[in-house]
Amino acid sequence: MSYIVDRRNLDFLMFDMFDVERVLAAGPFEGQDRELISQLLDTAQRIAEAEYLPSAATLDASPPTFVNGEAVMPDDVGRALRAYIEAGLSAQSFPPENGGLGLSHTVSMTANGMFIAANVAIANYFLLTAAAARLLLAFGTDEQKARYASQMIAGRWMGTMCLSEPQAGSSLADITTRAEPAADGAYHLRGTKIWISGGGHRMSENIVHLVLARLPDAPAGVKGISLFLVPQKRLDDMGAPGEDNNVRLIGLAHKMGQRGTTNCQLNFGEDGPSVGHLIGKPNQGLHAMFHMMNEARIGVGHVATMSGLMGYLYSRDYAVERLQGRRIGQKDPASPQIPLIEHVDVRRMLLAQKAAVEGALALCTFCALLVDQQKGAADEDQADLALLIDVLTPIVKSWPSEHCLEANKWAMQILGGAGYTSDHPIERLYRDNRLNHIYEGTFGIQGIDLLGRKVRMADGRGLDLLLARIKATIDEAAGIPALSGHAGKLEEALGWVRDATAAAVRESDPERSLANATLYLDATGTVVIAWLWLWQAMVAARAEETAIGAGRAFYQAKHATCDYFFRYMLPRAQIDLRLVEMLDDSCLVTTPEQIRAA
Amino acid sequence: MSYIVDRRNLDFLMFDMFDVERVLAAGPFEGQDRELISQLLDTAQRIAEAEYLPSAATLDASPPTFVNGEAVMPDDVGRALRAYIEAGLSAQSFPPENGGLGLSHTVSMTANGMFIAANVAIANYFLLTAAAARLLLAFGTDEQKARYASQMIAGRWMGTMCLSEPQAGSSLADITTRAEPAADGAYHLRGTKIWISGGGHRMSENIVHLVLARLPDAPAGVKGISLFLVPQKRLDDMGAPGEDNNVRLIGLAHKMGQRGTTNCQLNFGEDGPSVGHLIGKPNQGLHAMFHMMNEARIGVGHVATMSGLMGYLYSRDYAVERLQGRRIGQKDPASPQIPLIEHVDVRRMLLAQKAAVEGALALCTFCALLVDQQKGAADEDQADLALLIDVLTPIVKSWPSEHCLEANKWAMQILGGAGYTSDHPIERLYRDNRLNHIYEGTFGIQGIDLLGRKVRMADGRGLDLLLARIKATIDEAAGIPALSGHAGKLEEALGWVRDATAAAVRESDPERSLANATLYLDATGTVVIAWLWLWQAMVAARAEETAIGAGRAFYQAKHATCDYFFRYMLPRAQIDLRLVEMLDDSCLVTTPEQIRAA
Repeated sequence: MSYIVDRRNLDFLMFDMFDVERVLAAGPFEGQDRELISQLLDTAQRIAEAEYLPSAATLDASPPTFVNGEAVMPDDVGRALRAYIEAGLSAQSFPPENGGLGLSHTVSMTANGMFIAANVAIANYFLLTAAAARLLLAFGTDEQKARYASQMIAGRWMGTMCLSEPQAGSSLADITTRAEPAADGAYHLRGTKIWISGGGHRMSENIVHLVLARLPDAPAGVKGISLFLVPQKRLDDMGAPGEDNNVRLIGLAHKMGQRGTTNCQLNFGEDGPSVGHLIGKPNQGLHAMFHMMNEARIGVGHVATMSGLMGYLYSRDYAVERLQGRRIGQKDPASPQIPLIEHVDVRRMLLAQKAAVEGALALCTFCALLVDQQKGAADEDQADLALLIDVLTPIVKSWPSEHCLEANKWAMQILGGAGYTSDHPIERLYRDNRLNHIYEGTFGIQGIDLLGRKVRMADGRGLDLLLARIKATIDEAAGIPALSGHAGKLEEALGWVRDATAAAVRESDPERSLANATLYLDATGTVVIAWLWLWQAMVAARAEETAIGAGRAFYQAKHATCDYFFRYMLPRAQIDLRLVEMLDDSCLVTTPEQIRAA
Repeated sequence: MSYIVDRRNLDFLMFDMFDVERVLAAGPFEGQDRELISQLLDTAQRIAEAEYLPSAATLDASPPTFVNGEAVMPDDVGRALRAYIEAGLSAQSFPPENGGLGLSHTVSMTANGMFIAANVAIANYFLLTAAAARLLLAFGTDEQKARYASQMIAGRWMGTMCLSEPQAGSSLADITTRAEPAADGAYHLRGTKIWISGGGHRMSENIVHLVLARLPDAPAGVKGISLFLVPQKRLDDMGAPGEDNNVRLIGLAHKMGQRGTTNCQLNFGEDGPSVGHLIGKPNQGLHAMFHMMNEARIGVGHVATMSGLMGYLYSRDYAVERLQGRRIGQKDPASPQIPLIEHVDVRRMLLAQKAAVEGALALCTFCALLVDQQKGAADEDQADLALLIDVLTPIVKSWPSEHCLEANKWAMQILGGAGYTSDHPIERLYRDNRLNHIYEGTFGIQGIDLLGRKVRMADGRGLDLLLARIKATIDEAAGIPALSGHAGKLEEALGWVRDATAAAVRESDPERSLANATLYLDATGTVVIAWLWLWQAMVAARAEETAIGAGRAFYQAKHATCDYFFRYMLPRAQIDLRLVEMLDDSCLVTTPEQIRAA
């Protein structure tokens, strides 16, 4: 049994539920049929299990260290990354004209998921590099694409994103790194960046930093931020890395999890010029960065999901193998101990994990498929798909980061004291997963993004499109006797979302309107996941009729998990959405002075 | 500002709310007035801040290591423990006739709380030693008390509790360690114990292990378990530690948190006899161990609370100091950044922590005071107090372990990326706190204890007593206009608890009856905490009338937090208690085969 992937469930999601073959064939991904997808996943699984999984614990225990201005990396990291690159996987999602394999986002995300589950700390290096390369392809000049992006796609160089500064974390408006024009059309950058993942090492010949900075005449705030390409080593005329570019590693942050990924403080331009090249237009840097944000945020949700999945699969296996205690009511102490999974409360903890993890994975896959669909769609459809993705993005970034972390908590609980030790991977997954709540826009910021912007765009069309899709599933499920009750409940839940949204949008005081935005985000996410569970149960109900044995049990478990979600999870959303609707001001009117009073 | 204690809040709880002086004066703790209590807390705070807080981070980073069969301890640990002992604190809660200071449980728990907040990993050593000494005083012979307990109370020797074995974690019925009678009335023990906190070191001249084991003729199961005193070194005729007693440290577990507390695998009797002495009667070992369980479990809840409190105080201070972003609606990027606490969602995360932590602390203090009251009460009252404590014990053990861990999650979220690094104590507190969910009976086991035993004992009298106490507060609060709404809501919540309990007790199939016991535990806990918040708000409402300035703001914050709890938290209990009442069988009927199917 694999701990990093449930191929049966992937097949169910991709082929039974989302009909990935048909959807991809309608776009620019023709030929990416089930056979090709399965082959790719086979390859990814083989490499992830051989090269990524075994070093996860040792890398966590012995993360990169800061020695003489450089991050010294354990050998495992380079070896694992080479295996990934040699299999061509660094190129998987890029267009053939840029040296890529042209695979869909859905398929490449799914393949990468196994590496994330196995060892997110190493996977981060190629995920970040791919994100940076994608940004260059979208906004870079032909020369930048040829000289830099192509090297990254080929896996020879790596990339980072340099946004935060000591005084500017969530508030990017306040960055102060300067970019002074130089004589040759380039720029000299000067400033300090923090929380830079994936920098500071020598595993690749070069590192391409994408850096937010201000031009001398830039307006204040987010409208005065430009984006620059700053290589660790400058390129010579042949495009080979040569002269050092004065990007200095000042220190490494010591993180609770994802410890194998360097987290750097970088100084630019301290000892000499750090030469950078403008990407896109001046003062449009944040636009470029945010253009890529949807895919990046789907990615964070997917990382949270995969850490949750690994914990689920591992604790499920443990619950099957580990004997402990007796059935309630069994009074004979001489009777043999039973497997943990025979205890009802352990099954509850497994169902809670399954509900969160497989629900979240369905959401990530659905969102990735929307991104793919968008690429092949007609203009009008494209606009609608974009609105739908915009609304779903804060949800797919956030819901898994909360609920798949909670899943890891239950996984640990199943293992008991053993789960709290490094003898098992759960405590690492729990630490790794906690980061997803924070980066790429915190949970709170995602809430404001959803309720303050996304559901208001285009007169609320994005939300309307989402609710219409949910309604279509409700109508279909209403005809299946075993699911009609859930369908009715979900229809009611759509009313909660509509009423909460309307009340918040109506309120003219922005602080009051958004006072419960975080609750709105979480609860709307729960309604969306309930939809995806109803959908899964519907597909399973149809398939169950002709299935036998374990196949039948697989479908029954989908139905059971849907039941669990509707009974144990969905009702909570009503409480939170009601607080949003009532514009509850408990947190707004409590003053800082009151909270501080002692 | 202190991060390890909120003295203003302690004064509020102890003197304004619980009237500790009066209650203690009625029992065997006369003279423990406010002045004496304050002096003790001053001393404890001074030592905890000077000796415990500074080494918490370094001890976490460099925990004890296993070298040549021994746990090598960083110097900080011994020094901190010596400071505690030299101040006489190891003796605080023991009777004067045994060399103790005779302080009440309420007061000594409160004093110990500061050491826990500052550095739980070191505090564990004296907490465990005190628990073992208390057990010896309750069940040991006079000789055992004189030779062993007195040394532990004086702080010269330490103690451990040895329960779990590799095949017997939660299921103590399955322990196999053997105790063979020896010629001299002693016993020779042989077996392996795991998860033994506080063993394996040489910080004290001796370590007194209290070990569960089976006599040769013992019946199977829990009715055949006896308790033995097994010293690390045997005592000579003068009572001095001499000959080695063959208790071998085999290895140390590597825990996610509380890393400075050794967690040992110990072998008894492998290289030669491990001589033990029977404590209490044969086959009554579990009875003795569980006799002390209430105080131990209140202790675990208190540990969870104190880790939560430290995270709250630290993140509150950070939110006041750290400037980031602007008020929603402030469009001028040149305007200065505002403190985090000015953001409504940050105040939500502070209120969520305050609600959990100060609610939990009220519960722990209330329970400790019940234990003290019991000691001075008339027989009939004593029986009622015992029933009330029995019902509250699984709640006070569990609710803080869940909700103060959640509080630490929010504390980290306020700090953002910084909170995820070891530059701040939050990530350590979050890791430390996770253990409380697991040990001294897991969350799930506490649920079964509450719904399967405690609320059924004496025809449900324990629960009736609890609900009557809650009802008294409701009646009082109903007369205060600003609180009458909450009073009505809490009265409704008592109905949820009653209905859920009745349905579960009525159900004859024990598995079905207890299928949602964990939800019952958590939700009933939430109702209890809501009660304690209503009570706090009531006391604050009265005091607020005559208070001014920060004093007034302190009381207003109590009211605001009560509002938060009743609006954001209490409604969730209804969902869970409704599932219990309906005997929802989602988890029961889902089979292991379905969950495993792939």
